[in-house]
Amino acid sequence: MSASRSDGTIRVGIVGGTGYTGAELLRLLAQHPAVQLVSITSRGMAGTAVDRLFPSLRGRVGLTFVEPAAAHLERCDAVFFATPHGVAMSQARELLASGVRIIDLAADFRLRDAAEFERWYKIPHACPELLAEAVYALPEAAREAIKRARLIAMPGCYPTSVLLGLLPLAKLQAERSGGSGRGHAGDPVVDWGGLIADCKSGVSGAGRKVEIEYLAGEVSENFRAYGLGGHRHHPEIEQQLQQAVGRPVRVTFVPHLVPMIRGIHATLYVRLQAAAGEDLQRLYERFYRDEPFVDVMPPGSHPDTRSVRGSNIARIALHRPAEDLAIVLVVEDNLVKGAAGQAVQAMNIAFGRPESEGLTHIPLLP
Amino acid sequence: MSASRSDGTIRVGIVGGTGYTGAELLRLLAQHPAVQLVSITSRGMAGTAVDRLFPSLRGRVGLTFVEPAAAHLERCDAVFFATPHGVAMSQARELLASGVRIIDLAADFRLRDAAEFERWYKIPHACPELLAEAVYALPEAAREAIKRARLIAMPGCYPTSVLLGLLPLAKLQAERSGGSGRGHAGDPVVDWGGLIADCKSGVSGAGRKVEIEYLAGEVSENFRAYGLGGHRHHPEIEQQLQQAVGRPVRVTFVPHLVPMIRGIHATLYVRLQAAAGEDLQRLYERFYRDEPFVDVMPPGSHPDTRSVRGSNIARIALHRPAEDLAIVLVVEDNLVKGAAGQAVQAMNIAFGRPESEGLTHIPLLP
Amino acid sequence: MSASRSDGTIRVGIVGGTGYTGAELLRLLAQHPAVQLVSITSRGMAGTAVDRLFPSLRGRVGLTFVEPAAAHLERCDAVFFATPHGVAMSQARELLASGVRIIDLAADFRLRDAAEFERWYKIPHACPELLAEAVYALPEAAREAIKRARLIAMPGCYPTSVLLGLLPLAKLQAERSGGSGRGHAGDPVVDWGGLIADCKSGVSGAGRKVEIEYLAGEVSENFRAYGLGGHRHHPEIEQQLQQAVGRPVRVTFVPHLVPMIRGIHATLYVRLQAAAGEDLQRLYERFYRDEPFVDVMPPGSHPDTRSVRGSNIARIALHRPAEDLAIVLVVEDNLVKGAAGQAVQAMNIAFGRPESEGLTHIPLLP
Amino acid sequence: MSASRSDGTIRVGIVGGTGYTGAELLRLLAQHPAVQLVSITSRGMAGTAVDRLFPSLRGRVGLTFVEPAAAHLERCDAVFFATPHGVAMSQARELLASGVRIIDLAADFRLRDAAEFERWYKIPHACPELLAEAVYALPEAAREAIKRARLIAMPGCYPTSVLLGLLPLAKLQAERSGGSGRGHAGDPVVDWGGLIADCKSGVSGAGRKVEIEYLAGEVSENFRAYGLGGHRHHPEIEQQLQQAVGRPVRVTFVPHLVPMIRGIHATLYVRLQAAAGEDLQRLYERFYRDEPFVDVMPPGSHPDTRSVRGSNIARIALHRPAEDLAIVLVVEDNLVKGAAGQAVQAMNIAFGRPESEGLTHIPLLP
Repeated sequence: MSASRSDGTIRVGIVGGTGYTGAELLRLLAQHPAVQLVSITSRGMAGTAVDRLFPSLRGRVGLTFVEPAAAHLERCDAVFFATPHGVAMSQARELLASGVRIIDLAADFRLRDAAEFERWYKIPHACPELLAEAVYALPEAAREAIKRARLIAMPGCYPTSVLLGLLPLAKLQAERSGGSGRGHAGDPVVDWGGLIADCKSGVSGAGRKVEIEYLAGEVSENFRAYGLGGHRHHPEIEQQLQQAVGRPVRVTFVPHLVPMIRGIHATLYVRLQAAAGEDLQRLYERFYRDEPFVDVMPPGSHPDTRSVRGSNIARIALHRPAEDLAIVLVVEDNLVKGAAGQAVQAMNIAFGRPESEGLTHIPLLP
Repeated sequence: MSASRSDGTIRVGIVGGTGYTGAELLRLLAQHPAVQLVSITSRGMAGTAVDRLFPSLRGRVGLTFVEPAAAHLERCDAVFFATPHGVAMSQARELLASGVRIIDLAADFRLRDAAEFERWYKIPHACPELLAEAVYALPEAAREAIKRARLIAMPGCYPTSVLLGLLPLAKLQAERSGGSGRGHAGDPVVDWGGLIADCKSGVSGAGRKVEIEYLAGEVSENFRAYGLGGHRHHPEIEQQLQQAVGRPVRVTFVPHLVPMIRGIHATLYVRLQAAAGEDLQRLYERFYRDEPFVDVMPPGSHPDTRSVRGSNIARIALHRPAEDLAIVLVVEDNLVKGAAGQAVQAMNIAFGRPESEGLTHIPLLP
Repeated sequence: MSASRSDGTIRVGIVGGTGYTGAELLRLLAQHPAVQLVSITSRGMAGTAVDRLFPSLRGRVGLTFVEPAAAHLERCDAVFFATPHGVAMSQARELLASGVRIIDLAADFRLRDAAEFERWYKIPHACPELLAEAVYALPEAAREAIKRARLIAMPGCYPTSVLLGLLPLAKLQAERSGGSGRGHAGDPVVDWGGLIADCKSGVSGAGRKVEIEYLAGEVSENFRAYGLGGHRHHPEIEQQLQQAVGRPVRVTFVPHLVPMIRGIHATLYVRLQAAAGEDLQRLYERFYRDEPFVDVMPPGSHPDTRSVRGSNIARIALHRPAEDLAIVLVVEDNLVKGAAGQAVQAMNIAFGRPESEGLTHIPLLP
Repeated sequence: MSASRSDGTIRVGIVGGTGYTGAELLRLLAQHPAVQLVSITSRGMAGTAVDRLFPSLRGRVGLTFVEPAAAHLERCDAVFFATPHGVAMSQARELLASGVRIIDLAADFRLRDAAEFERWYKIPHACPELLAEAVYALPEAAREAIKRARLIAMPGCYPTSVLLGLLPLAKLQAERSGGSGRGHAGDPVVDWGGLIADCKSGVSGAGRKVEIEYLAGEVSENFRAYGLGGHRHHPEIEQQLQQAVGRPVRVTFVPHLVPMIRGIHATLYVRLQAAAGEDLQRLYERFYRDEPFVDVMPPGSHPDTRSVRGSNIARIALHRPAEDLAIVLVVEDNLVKGAAGQAVQAMNIAFGRPESEGLTHIPLLP
């Protein structure tokens, strides 16, 4: 599997580009200097020009949706799945066999345990043997693995925000636990069993699903929590944190729907224990110093979601209302860093391109 | 057909109360002192408590949706149809025969001409013989007829705003045309063939329809015209104006979708001819002087839709940028004066109740 | 101080009615059958008709703003202060001396400790001797005291939501702590030092303040936390909880700004200890059984803010993701139950009127 | 005045970059490959880092606001004025004398007649002698003039939309009027005295002005017309149309405020006369064939404002409800094609850069 064609271009196919994630992928890829968009599939819209569905792409994307069978995806270098869960896994074996890199924006390859997948998604997994190989592609946590990956599972939008907000503490824990000679090596640096992630998302996070609860008349001028009975991003958050921390983790995760289109705001409550003496601001700044897409804001900041709108950046601010308590605020654009942008970032890494290529848009404010 | 029960109460049934118009009817009728809500039907939701669908009604509406067959609507004094078109006409004959007054918020009985109905609504009319009897129930134009009506056709939301904005001029025309001894008796007071109605509506005007174009992700932060190829409210506007004016009328009607829930704003452009010398402000104030729900604002006003939110009031402002041109601004809440509120107003009139009963809510601002 | 005039009417004055709280008071009081609005003051708007500022009140409120000096507030039975903090305390002594009941929607009399007031509001308190007498008028916690109160301090919008969400647990604690014979009498039923109140408010909570951060261009399509450095509602929440619980309480309170006009949603995280075995649903239902304005929803509910829009109702839902953790969701309309409506409720109680009088509006949905 | 520095870069200064137009200029110029941002002034914010005011620019714009006196704008190649009117004219003579090109986004140099300027803007013009030289820089109408211009007056946001919607007809008129041998040479192709421009704008069009009417609590969930007594964009529209058409023009211009941030939608009503036989779709397509930023959509289209959000594109659709009537729909992003983007486009033209350089962003949808 080569980095890219000899001329540096990456031939890209998209499966299921009629939703918001698909539209966003098209926006980003159409402006990416190394990408050649060769095919986009949709059962329902086959035969329709992409720019009829999304007039914002007029003059920029000349493709027409085609039936999956006619797409010749096996000739691509990379295929993005911007589909509901269950689609990528049905085509994965064949595409991998053709030497195609798969970048799945759905959930098929996020959970390492097929049983766990089946419990949350209510369908059997079509290729459990591939789960071990799949890379959970949060670049800030798995850059090296992405470079070698054939099967790239993009994190969910909520998990991206929660994980970015907790990774520096997870690493601190891992270092301390693994270290020796420091008296508190085994002490939990935070109360890993009592994490709270109060998350808020704009409505595009639900995709372009035609359900009554996402009508403008239902969403506008309204605010509510949802999913307290269990949200599919929950196991993914705990799985990844646990792996990073190296000990059991319990996250209370409550998502809320905000009457806006784009943006996720995570408010994370962390009880500090052995870490109580730490300078968290410094810890986070150091951890993210070289990251192109994570911005640790000055102390006292309140990042707003619009400050990242349309861009691949996540911004983090740290608060410390008491010695034993940290509040971590994280914002991202759920369609970019939370989905399509991060997928392009992973593609760049996997194909040896500059990591920021095609992802340098300045956020749209106001 | 009596005005109401001997104890003054009106027994009311609602057909199809799961949309926004239905929810609004429930809000108004549940607070109406003379109304007893006896039955509400829905095929899809039969067996569900109304307040499970609309938690805003918890503790206020104890009904459960029932199958139409189980509703015993024939025992009601009045039945409101808050359904898509085509439903009321299928039950009209039978209900009328049982002595029930029908108040249809859909379009079945708005157009006097069955062929015209069929042209616009693409289905045959089920009881064309009832069209002549039906009253187009804009109270400001047809109060006397409503008092005697069995079959009450509520105007569409857009037509209500356009007609209220033009009725005083239509009456001026009718008076002059019918009069004698005035030299310009037959002259058109305005260019009736060149009326322009540029209308803007919040998204609740589309109902609670589960269509992709009404998703929050499609409607928010967006503005567009629609229906330029022909909108079903168009023939209704021209029919009623023509009747009021007594001569052919052509209205160019362009609706637009506003990213908000409630409210219609009509901007009407009228070329003045024989009326050029008129004091329009006085004409409108006089015409609406005794109307409980039409407010002619002071000269120079710009009515905003929120100033009528949740109330049955329409506000009108007149502008005269040139001697030969009038601009009439009209605002209403499309779900109240444009639908459910006006239907309750018509019910009050038909049953001999005080016209404002149950309709005195002050608009919700902000 | 009599309950009301011999004819049952209450003569009401409003100080500072040009903000959103003032507009909402006007909406509610103008529809209140026992209230006679006699005077409304505003320095900046003196001489302007109220309905010029708020066209929604045309035909319903005939008052004109007057200079405070010309208002003769001493002739009123009740005076509402819908002002910034600092105004009510400057007029309190004089009005009380005239036998007027004061209902302050600002913060002047919420904190019992003048030093605490001065620390948070940065001005000296003008009448600290009145603080002991003032009643913190959350009806669900202080109904009896309100009946006898001359000086009524209305709770802040956020504190109302947080307190309603925690009062049943506070009472459980108080009962157990005070009780005898039960082995765990002194045990904390919840971790009172680890409460988290993640709150979200629409922008009307900031009032009609002309500040850049509340411009539509700043607020729309945006979400952010604020006030992590310290919010003025914080001491009020802890003071009242502490009093109800009877032991030290620490609440981590994080407010967020939602791009909508009305509504507060509180997400409360409570670690259960001795209460872990309790049936919380039953506890809350029992506690609020006779309350006219608090609705405990069925298990599994996600109350949305629009389900209370424009009404004085608060809705509560309980979740229990783990044996030792409760999540309490509370919604209210910040301008009604969180401000003007609760103030009218307190007035009703204080003047011996039916508690729901003038407050029976059904929420406006959608 | 050279096209640009020998290395191709353009040294740019911005006066008054704290509003929305300034923020948008910064977004575009910071991504422009040929631009070197050297200075940005603000009296109120001098000393503050630009990215503290606009966190969206963190890591992308390293400038700090400086006092005008300290900006050394005379060393720039181009200076953009993103100020209220009155500022550019006070500095124009001096800057021009230093060889700097001025690109004014305010109104100082839009009107050719100083008396007209003074009538609308209520201040005397500081350099009326420069008005004749100033170029009204709508590229689609004045590309050649812009190439030679020192003093570039950017069109207002509304005028841009109205003019783009009417230019093809204006040109048709000019050709026919100037032509010979065609019988109807002098006939008006449309009723130039009866044009109607019903325009709708998002709230960012009002800038970042701290006025009560632009608060989120006032703008959200509301729609209203404004400025019927006279809007400053009105004379500009008529001046430019008149010049293009070569005969008197009367436009009835009614702006409306839409509860959204970005976007203008113009609905133009044109009575066709000698042009009644024309194929307008073809006329417009031909006129705009080579324009990089004007997209004539297929017949029957309803362009939505979001389809151009964040981009410099305007989209136009033509409707013909009757032989003698055309309705032209135009959408643009008021901050881009209506302000900052068009200014960069003009800069590109003036400095001999590729016209689309730095302006190729694909619209952000949703």
